[in-house]
Amino acid sequence: MVLLIGVLSPIYFLQLCNMPYKKIQQEDISFFGSVTGLQYVHTDEEQRARCAADQTEDLRYIPEVVLLPGTAEEISSIMKYCNEHLIAVTPRGAGTGLSGGALPVTGGVVLDMKRFNKILKIDKRNFQVTTEPGVITQVLQEAVKNEGLFYPPDPASKGSCFIGGNVSENSGGPRAVKYGVVKDYVLNLEIVLPNGEIIWTGANVLKNATGYNLTQLIVGSEGTLGIITRIVLRLIPPVKHDLLLLVPFRSAVQACAAVNAIFLAGYTPSALEFMERDALEWSMRYVQATGISLPDDIAAHLLIEVDGNNMDELYRDAEAMSQIVQQYDIDEVLMADSHEQKQMLWTLRRKVGEAVKSNSIYKEEDTVVPRAELPELLTIVKEIGREYGFHSVCYGHAGDGNLHVNIVKAGMSDEDWNTKLPAGIRKLFGEVVRLGGTISGEHGIGLVQREYMNVAFNETQMNLMKQIKHVFDPNGILNPGKIFL
Amino acid sequence: MVLLIGVLSPIYFLQLCNMPYKKIQQEDISFFGSVTGLQYVHTDEEQRARCAADQTEDLRYIPEVVLLPGTAEEISSIMKYCNEHLIAVTPRGAGTGLSGGALPVTGGVVLDMKRFNKILKIDKRNFQVTTEPGVITQVLQEAVKNEGLFYPPDPASKGSCFIGGNVSENSGGPRAVKYGVVKDYVLNLEIVLPNGEIIWTGANVLKNATGYNLTQLIVGSEGTLGIITRIVLRLIPPVKHDLLLLVPFRSAVQACAAVNAIFLAGYTPSALEFMERDALEWSMRYVQATGISLPDDIAAHLLIEVDGNNMDELYRDAEAMSQIVQQYDIDEVLMADSHEQKQMLWTLRRKVGEAVKSNSIYKEEDTVVPRAELPELLTIVKEIGREYGFHSVCYGHAGDGNLHVNIVKAGMSDEDWNTKLPAGIRKLFGEVVRLGGTISGEHGIGLVQREYMNVAFNETQMNLMKQIKHVFDPNGILNPGKIFL
Repeated sequence: MVLLIGVLSPIYFLQLCNMPYKKIQQEDISFFGSVTGLQYVHTDEEQRARCAADQTEDLRYIPEVVLLPGTAEEISSIMKYCNEHLIAVTPRGAGTGLSGGALPVTGGVVLDMKRFNKILKIDKRNFQVTTEPGVITQVLQEAVKNEGLFYPPDPASKGSCFIGGNVSENSGGPRAVKYGVVKDYVLNLEIVLPNGEIIWTGANVLKNATGYNLTQLIVGSEGTLGIITRIVLRLIPPVKHDLLLLVPFRSAVQACAAVNAIFLAGYTPSALEFMERDALEWSMRYVQATGISLPDDIAAHLLIEVDGNNMDELYRDAEAMSQIVQQYDIDEVLMADSHEQKQMLWTLRRKVGEAVKSNSIYKEEDTVVPRAELPELLTIVKEIGREYGFHSVCYGHAGDGNLHVNIVKAGMSDEDWNTKLPAGIRKLFGEVVRLGGTISGEHGIGLVQREYMNVAFNETQMNLMKQIKHVFDPNGILNPGKIFL
Repeated sequence: MVLLIGVLSPIYFLQLCNMPYKKIQQEDISFFGSVTGLQYVHTDEEQRARCAADQTEDLRYIPEVVLLPGTAEEISSIMKYCNEHLIAVTPRGAGTGLSGGALPVTGGVVLDMKRFNKILKIDKRNFQVTTEPGVITQVLQEAVKNEGLFYPPDPASKGSCFIGGNVSENSGGPRAVKYGVVKDYVLNLEIVLPNGEIIWTGANVLKNATGYNLTQLIVGSEGTLGIITRIVLRLIPPVKHDLLLLVPFRSAVQACAAVNAIFLAGYTPSALEFMERDALEWSMRYVQATGISLPDDIAAHLLIEVDGNNMDELYRDAEAMSQIVQQYDIDEVLMADSHEQKQMLWTLRRKVGEAVKSNSIYKEEDTVVPRAELPELLTIVKEIGREYGFHSVCYGHAGDGNLHVNIVKAGMSDEDWNTKLPAGIRKLFGEVVRLGGTISGEHGIGLVQREYMNVAFNETQMNLMKQIKHVFDPNGILNPGKIFL
């Protein structure tokens, strides 16, 4: 009996007692200070409040302490300590996430990655960049552009989000339809495991058949398996020209149908975005845009971009696509005729999410289906909205079959919002899965979608994922409460 | 004590005793017959010999029984039984593998997948195909081509290999340089787990941020985590035209350097293949090709293909690339001027492996490095060859930095072959890793490379992979002896 007690660690006791994570004490703070320097350990209200929210609804969870480590080795020491003391650790990028992945739901430590803000090497010879995760995506894009290279993935928040968050969520963006999502560019990752060990997940090569694909297991794992400290991305040659069309439709479902018609005709636009009338209208109001008329009978728009190195060909493609959309009930096709006009249209598209958020409490769903099922999906969204009494603003990356469904609270009662709406969302996700799709295309599961994971996956699938989590994080200290209920 | 014995299963006993897998008995055969029908259970010498080898060196391992299941449900029953009885199961595609992934090294059951030979659905609307794994890759390519779609990955064995094997090994091929490898096309997989459960790994969508990426974990896992029974692949629009250039170099290292020069100038060929003189010469002899002159001073060739929909542009690109290679010491650039000539050049390239094999006992290494390091890699290969006394024939997908190093036994003594050569290969792989590369680009680890896994990965990385294996296959019955020592 003495022996038995002797071998049980404190963590084991906590687990046996089903106790929550350890509350942080002064001794822990002192330890963290000895690792990072005390100036990077924040327990003040302001810093903790700063790290309490991301862009997900109006959710707030206050961490006990905010750490700003500067190196992988510092993170290693922190993780080793927290793993031994059963302290919850939530990594945080720029806080632009839309599924609550960065929310410290059990308190504990927030590992704020913003000091990891260096682009370490742009390898022009090999079309690769090695970067720390706390670099703003657009900053990275511009840096490689200055070296004559191109990193395509461009989430709407590219001006503020971190590349590390993009990797963690497997982000997309408008260009994904032609160029793929983040996972298609990640070659290799340095991560700190929950036990403090530092590993690379793969190699800096374009093809790799050497063991299991740990790199792709980490991409999109939402900070639940390891802390990303370095990222190697492949880059491609830049594209010289692009053209942008805005097509107004009198029927939103027809706009969705037109998307697939373009692909069936053999064209691959570099962006093919859908915006319901409300999406564009609210965004125009939000950014105070002028110069775009929005006649009363217009129900939706497609924003179509083509890119390439041959301007004549782009004009031919744009002309051909204009012909294709003519078979639907549309108003006049607008071709952006200046850099400024393109910028304005893209700003309107990028700001839809913020515009909706500024308008009302809302929930953002991130449905994705095989592209041809988009008209049916939109129809279903509206039907379920009528059935469950909610209004939705739909927009998104139609070329990928990825429809963002922003559900606005507006006049809905708190009770309906909290009880009836989840049932409606569950029904919607069931239909999405029936159509061959799934419940998140690019925003991740994080906190707010985990209750719906069982719509997309059965118990066997969920158990495999949970056991993989357990392999990486046996004590469950890393980003607890995410992905799994 | 009675209770303790009571709860131990037979498997547990076998594991406790560290015994090998159960030998197959008549009762097992009867069970298999009851699942598949006895006509699909083969214990005769001929069938067992057929499934004893793949294309890896001259290795042979005779299975105890060959099963030809016809459905995922049959495989489920077989796996459940074998898992309970600790019978080793090795899945087999077309047997074209180059790392021994399909070799039944512990005897047991070979699960021959050749009855899974149906293309289930070509979804033209969504640019997707759902296929069984036992379809020959080229058959699949032609079937989707007939429907106006394109599946690019084209391993050298495309005329005989199975698409399921391609997924299991994450195969590449010449077109990978522009179009990516198999992993870039796999959307979703149906697999049978070692315990008999049948799951889908993902959804039929172009982007997916819903839980861990089980799909990419299975791709390239070499049949060690589950048996693939259905595959959903994304397809792309077909390309209308291509041009093919053959460039003879007087220096093999210069040929490797020219590869990167083409990319640095902004071109992305649809294939960029390197062949040492011996590779082409042996292949010409093997296929009895005529019509290509091979002057004595030529050390290597690049085979460069460009494709696209605009023939003028292709000619311009080909002309520009010809200019780029002129800066090196080359003979005259040949442009294939007929379909037949293109076919002949591609046949020569595809047959190099077989030609080398027909010439001598050999080992095929599948090194891959960042593209710009290719000249250094080739130099190192030859240096190590001189140091360790082996001759190598090098060729491969230079545009990806993927160099196949075929080491021929020729005059090497058996002792040197068995002891000195592995040390040389280990040294080579060490250099590959130093250059940022890894030990397999597209052939996999299988049986023959597992002893070198510790060159690419440290103990922490290996343990993560082994634990993932354990999650899927706790009894270790599925494709034992692969990837891990």
